[in-house]
Amino acid sequence: MPVTIIGTRLNNRPNFLTVGWVTRANINPPMIAIAINKANASADGILMHKAFSVNFPGTDLIEETDYCGLVSGKEKDKSRIFDIFYGELKNAPMIKSCPITLECQLTETIDLPTNYLFIGEIKGAYGDENCFTEGKPDVTEINPLLLTMPDNSYWQVGEFLGRACKIGRSLKA
Amino acid sequence: MPVTIIGTRLNNRPNFLTVGWVTRANINPPMIAIAINKANASADGILMHKAFSVNFPGTDLIEETDYCGLVSGKEKDKSRIFDIFYGELKNAPMIKSCPITLECQLTETIDLPTNYLFIGEIKGAYGDENCFTEGKPDVTEINPLLLTMPDNSYWQVGEFLGRACKIGRSLKA
Repeated sequence: MPVTIIGTRLNNRPNFLTVGWVTRANINPPMIAIAINKANASADGILMHKAFSVNFPGTDLIEETDYCGLVSGKEKDKSRIFDIFYGELKNAPMIKSCPITLECQLTETIDLPTNYLFIGEIKGAYGDENCFTEGKPDVTEINPLLLTMPDNSYWQVGEFLGRACKIGRSLKA
Repeated sequence: MPVTIIGTRLNNRPNFLTVGWVTRANINPPMIAIAINKANASADGILMHKAFSVNFPGTDLIEETDYCGLVSGKEKDKSRIFDIFYGELKNAPMIKSCPITLECQLTETIDLPTNYLFIGEIKGAYGDENCFTEGKPDVTEINPLLLTMPDNSYWQVGEFLGRACKIGRSLKA
């Protein structure tokens, strides 16, 4: 799974939670879905302010990223770990040092037994210009973190294997 | 994003669609969410039978995987690409050659503008015993496919970087 840091506002300050349960959800308008344990402080922040950010850390932020998953915003003030910025939404703090960040407006909350699945419309997307090649995000420059469970391991993205929507054409005949 | 092949039944035969919009959604009971364009034949299969499978192909299946994303089940019979098996659910065909497979019962359908977000409870999970280390799925043995968009590229999982819920402890002090 990809590793993201979800930004919210809580008790009048920014809060950050590491989340691997993330997927795109709708093409047009662009939407993203994230699943968060109901016990997490970030769930309260999203329910209250109807907004959140999705930040993709590079491997250089592995310690800060892991820390944001270890420590609850209910117990520790996580607002000073990162330099932050805001886009259009006042309650979606974004992390300056993350190469790709998204600000999202909550559109739907799915109340599952132990988790909330929050669906947000992507209202703004920001990227470090060094992480783009020919106008597209370049994963070799972003160098994002991957996570596997239950072995609790972080991984790098490895070798390029082929072009999607192309390599399978040989079987089309 | 991870690359999965979603298995459904359609017109009384198995059908397979490549999907990268996948995330775990709930801890207990275990649930998974997948987002599928409403125009895809697989969406009809899931709505009709309330079941689907999630198959994680290894890099050796890159051509077959790409093919299942290129060609519609409305036009081509994709039922013979893979050897299949069934678990508990009659309408969730699983792929024998995939190292990890899940069979899911549809529990909720979120009707978004262009996509359905299907939430399924994982009723059974199957794995190649060679892909486990100390009882846990081992990503270096599974060797799954990763996908980036919009540059349409497949990638391998790369180097191990550190232990989650551990490497960030140094910042806790």
